[in-house]
Amino acid sequence: MVPTRKDSPYVPLTPEEIAEDTYRAYKLGVSSVHVHARDEAGNPTYKKEVYGEIFSAIRRKCPDIIICASTSGRSDRSLEHRAEVLELRPDMASLMMGTVNFIKNPSPNSQEDIVALAKRMEEHGVKPELEAFEPGFVNVAKYLASKGHLRPPLHFNLLLGSLGSMPAEARDLVFLAGSVPPGSTWAATGIGRFQLQVNVASMLMGGHVRVGLEDSLYYSYPEKSLATNEQLVERVARIARELGREIATPAEARAILGLDH
Amino acid sequence: MVPTRKDSPYVPLTPEEIAEDTYRAYKLGVSSVHVHARDEAGNPTYKKEVYGEIFSAIRRKCPDIIICASTSGRSDRSLEHRAEVLELRPDMASLMMGTVNFIKNPSPNSQEDIVALAKRMEEHGVKPELEAFEPGFVNVAKYLASKGHLRPPLHFNLLLGSLGSMPAEARDLVFLAGSVPPGSTWAATGIGRFQLQVNVASMLMGGHVRVGLEDSLYYSYPEKSLATNEQLVERVARIARELGREIATPAEARAILGLDH
Amino acid sequence: MVPTRKDSPYVPLTPEEIAEDTYRAYKLGVSSVHVHARDEAGNPTYKKEVYGEIFSAIRRKCPDIIICASTSGRSDRSLEHRAEVLELRPDMASLMMGTVNFIKNPSPNSQEDIVALAKRMEEHGVKPELEAFEPGFVNVAKYLASKGHLRPPLHFNLLLGSLGSMPAEARDLVFLAGSVPPGSTWAATGIGRFQLQVNVASMLMGGHVRVGLEDSLYYSYPEKSLATNEQLVERVARIARELGREIATPAEARAILGLDH
Amino acid sequence: MVPTRKDSPYVPLTPEEIAEDTYRAYKLGVSSVHVHARDEAGNPTYKKEVYGEIFSAIRRKCPDIIICASTSGRSDRSLEHRAEVLELRPDMASLMMGTVNFIKNPSPNSQEDIVALAKRMEEHGVKPELEAFEPGFVNVAKYLASKGHLRPPLHFNLLLGSLGSMPAEARDLVFLAGSVPPGSTWAATGIGRFQLQVNVASMLMGGHVRVGLEDSLYYSYPEKSLATNEQLVERVARIARELGREIATPAEARAILGLDH
Ligand SMILES: [Zn+2]
Ligand SMILES: [Zn+2]
Ligand SMILES: [Zn+2]
Ligand SMILES: [Zn+2]
Repeated sequence: MVPTRKDSPYVPLTPEEIAEDTYRAYKLGVSSVHVHARDEAGNPTYKKEVYGEIFSAIRRKCPDIIICASTSGRSDRSLEHRAEVLELRPDMASLMMGTVNFIKNPSPNSQEDIVALAKRMEEHGVKPELEAFEPGFVNVAKYLASKGHLRPPLHFNLLLGSLGSMPAEARDLVFLAGSVPPGSTWAATGIGRFQLQVNVASMLMGGHVRVGLEDSLYYSYPEKSLATNEQLVERVARIARELGREIATPAEARAILGLDH
Repeated sequence: MVPTRKDSPYVPLTPEEIAEDTYRAYKLGVSSVHVHARDEAGNPTYKKEVYGEIFSAIRRKCPDIIICASTSGRSDRSLEHRAEVLELRPDMASLMMGTVNFIKNPSPNSQEDIVALAKRMEEHGVKPELEAFEPGFVNVAKYLASKGHLRPPLHFNLLLGSLGSMPAEARDLVFLAGSVPPGSTWAATGIGRFQLQVNVASMLMGGHVRVGLEDSLYYSYPEKSLATNEQLVERVARIARELGREIATPAEARAILGLDH
Repeated sequence: MVPTRKDSPYVPLTPEEIAEDTYRAYKLGVSSVHVHARDEAGNPTYKKEVYGEIFSAIRRKCPDIIICASTSGRSDRSLEHRAEVLELRPDMASLMMGTVNFIKNPSPNSQEDIVALAKRMEEHGVKPELEAFEPGFVNVAKYLASKGHLRPPLHFNLLLGSLGSMPAEARDLVFLAGSVPPGSTWAATGIGRFQLQVNVASMLMGGHVRVGLEDSLYYSYPEKSLATNEQLVERVARIARELGREIATPAEARAILGLDH
Repeated sequence: MVPTRKDSPYVPLTPEEIAEDTYRAYKLGVSSVHVHARDEAGNPTYKKEVYGEIFSAIRRKCPDIIICASTSGRSDRSLEHRAEVLELRPDMASLMMGTVNFIKNPSPNSQEDIVALAKRMEEHGVKPELEAFEPGFVNVAKYLASKGHLRPPLHFNLLLGSLGSMPAEARDLVFLAGSVPPGSTWAATGIGRFQLQVNVASMLMGGHVRVGLEDSLYYSYPEKSLATNEQLVERVARIARELGREIATPAEARAILGLDH
C-alpha cells in the first residue's frame, strides 16, 4: 500500500516532507531509504521530475544515504513509466519478482516485464532490490540470475503477512530466507500488524530490516495508535541494540550490498 | 498448461477419448478425474454442453469415479463462463486461491472472483478443490474459511515446480503441506519434470496424488519420451504398492473427501 | 551447567540468596522459578532439607510464584536421590526426556529412570517440566504420553545451543517447537551466548521464556560482562513489552500451565 | 540393534555368510557394505581377527566394494577395543557423533572418545562415516571439523525413527539433511518400520541410501514378514530406477565419497 494523507497525517508526501522524514531516520542510523513519489494531489506518480526533486532534497540532508526508488507502478503499469525513474540513477530500485494479489486485486508482472525492468536497471547502473512475497518469487530470481538477467550478489526484500501472500510467522521467514541463494543479502518486513515481528525475526536470523509507514501505519495495532516513521525506526533500533546487532552506517551498508559508488 | 494434440498425440481431447483414458486409469485404481473440455478445434472451452458430454461418457464407463471440473478459465477469464460447468453439478471443481505467473504470464484471480466462484460451488453442491501454488494461496483459503466463504473440511491440491511459483523440492512440499489447516485433506503434483518426485514425496507424507498429462507430458524427462495418462498412473501405483500405501476405491475416496453423494 | 561462586559472584547459593534473587525477579514480573539446591560448600545437592529451606524462603517473599525443582541430579544419578525433592510437592519439577552430552560428558537418562521419575511426580501431584535438547526428546515425551506415563497437557522446556545438542538458530527453534504436540505449552532458552536470541524467538512464536544464570553467566558475551538474574530478567521483559507480549502474573501462568493448586 | 540368529534366520553371522550376503547385494548394485563382526557364539565382537576374516571373504567376492567397519562397540565401550578394527584399514568406519538412548538404554559417547576415535581413523587412513541421530550430532561434527578433528568433505549417515531419537517423517529428514554442512555427502536410513520411507525420501532429496537388516528385520511391518538383505536391496533399487536415480558403481561411489584408494 502506498499510503496517503487520508490514511495518516504522518505520511510524508512532498519532497521536503520526505527529505525531512528521511533525515530524522538517518540520524537514528537508517542507511537506506525506499521512495515513492506523489503528485500534487497526493497520489502516486511515476514522473522522474518528482523523483528528481525528492532525491535532491534527500541528498542535501543525507549525502551518503542509499536511495532505493520504487518501480512498482501502483498507479500505472506501463513499463516505460515504471522505468522512468531509473534515468535518475538512484542507488537501487525495487523489482517485483512475480504477481501477487495486493489486498484484493492482482498486481500483475509478466516475466517479460520483469526482464525488461532488470535490463534497464543494469543499463543505468541501478542495483535491483528483489521484492519477494512468496517462495516462487525467489525461484524466479534464481532463474533470472541463471539466465544472466540478474547479476549476483542478489539483494532481496522479503515481504510477509499480506493477506494474499505468504504469512508472517517465524516458520515462514525461516523458510523464505532459507530459499535465498548463498551469497545473497536480504532484508525483511511484515505488512501491517506483522511489521515488528518480522523485523525482529530478521535481526535474529542475520537479515536486515525494512521498516516504515509504507508497510504499517500503526505503532500499536491493538491500540490503533498511528505511527511516525521516526517512531518505527526508533523502536527497531532499540531492539537491535538489545540484541547486540550493530546498525550499519551508510558506508558499511554500501559495502554489504556491493554498491560501488 | 492445458495440452493439445500438438503437444502430444496421447492427450485425450474428445469426450470419447477422455472417457476412454479415464476408464484405463480407473481400472488401475484411480478414484478421481480432473477434466478440461476442448472445442471441436481442440482448444480449451468453458461450455457446459461439452462438459456435459464428457461427464456422461465418463459416467457410463466409471459410474462411481469422482469428477472434478476445471474452472481455471484459461481460455476465458469471465466469471460467468468459468462458473458455467458448475450447473452440471460435478462432484468437485477446481478453485484457484490466488494469482500466479503461469509460465510467463499472470493468471489473475481477484479475491472477489474467488469468493464468487466459491459461492457458486456452494450453491450447486460442488466441493471445491483448492489449487495452491504458493503458501499465500493456502493463507487465502484459511482466511476465506474464517469468513464462511469455504466450508471445512477443506481439500487442497498443491502444485509445485512451475517456473513462476514454488519449487518442487522435498523441503517445499513439507513446508506447503505443513501450512494446510488441521482436518484438511490434500494431494500434490509437480509440474513437468517434477511430477513424479512430488507424487512420491506426497505419498511418504500421507498426502494424495494427482498425476497425468496436464502436468507432465513426458514419462522420462531426460529421455523426452512422451507419456500416456495410463503409463503415468501405472508408475505411481507401482510405487504406492512398494511403499505400502493402499489405493483408495472411489467409495473410500468419497469418504475421505467428505463427499456425500 | 549449575554455576558456582567461582563462575560468578552473582550466583545465588544459600536459601536466603536464592529467595532474594527470586524476589527481585518476581517484582519484575517473573511467574515461575527453577531451583537447584547447593550444600554448605556451594556444591549441588539433592537433599530435601536444603530444598525445603529454599522453598520456604521463596514462599515467604513470593507467595504465589510457581516453584519448579530440578531433578537433573548433576551431582548424583541415583533415582532415589533425584526424586527426593518431590516429597516436598513443589508445583513442578524438571524431567529430562533423554540422554545428551552436556559440554563433554553424557548425562545419561535411561527410559526406565524417566518413567520412574514421571511416576513419582504423578504420585506427588508435581507437574513435570519436560526438558528437551533434541527432537528425539520431544518424541520420547509423545511416546510416554501415549503409554499413559505423562498426562496432557504437556509442558516443555526447549534448550538450544549447547555444544553437544541442537543449535540455537531460528530454524532450530521453529523445528523443535513445531514438533511439540498440539495442546502443549512450551518455553525456550538458549545456552550461553544464545540465551537472548532464543528467548526473543520464543516470544515471537508464542512460546514462553526461561531466562537466568543457569543458562548464561554473561549479560553480553562479546564484552564478557557478568550478569545478575535481575539484569537478564529486566532485559527480556523490556523486549517483551516492545513486542506487545504481556507478562503473565503467577495466577495467569498457573492457568496457562493447568496447575490447580 | 545388531541382530542375531534369534531375531531372524536371515541375519548373516559368519565371515562366509556375511561375504555371501554382501555378494548378493553387490550384484544388485550395492557399492558399500557396513560390517559388524560376531564371535563364535553369534554375539557382537570387536576383535580384529574376526573382522579380518570377514574383510578377506568380502574382498574375494567383491574386490572393489567399499568396506565400512562398525566402531559402535555395542558389546564393549573400551576405546581400545572399539578402535582395534581400524588397524585393518577398512575404507571407512562408523563414528558416533554423540550420545543417544538406543531402545531404552543410553549409548554414551563422550566428546573425548569421539575425538580419540577420529584421530585413530585419520592415522589409519580410514574415512569416518559420521553417525547422526539428532541435529546435535551434526552440530558436533561441524564443531570437530572447525577444530581440525574431522577433515572435509564429511560424510554423514542419518538415522531416523529410533524411539529415543529423531522421528522419521519427511520434515525430520528435510531438517536434518538441511543441517549438514555444504560440500558434505550423506545417506539416510530409518530404523525398523521407517527404513523404506527414509530411504525413498533420501533419494528424492539427492541423498544416498543405507539399507539392510541392521536397521529393519522385516520386509513388511504390517505383515511381519522377515526380510533378507537381498530383498531389501532389491526393493530400494527398483524404486531408485522408477525415480530415475542411477545406482553408483563402487568406483563412482569412491569418487563421490573422496576415497582415493
Ligand atoms: Zn514500496
Ligand atoms: Zn487443470
Ligand atoms: Zn536446571
Ligand atoms: Zn552398525
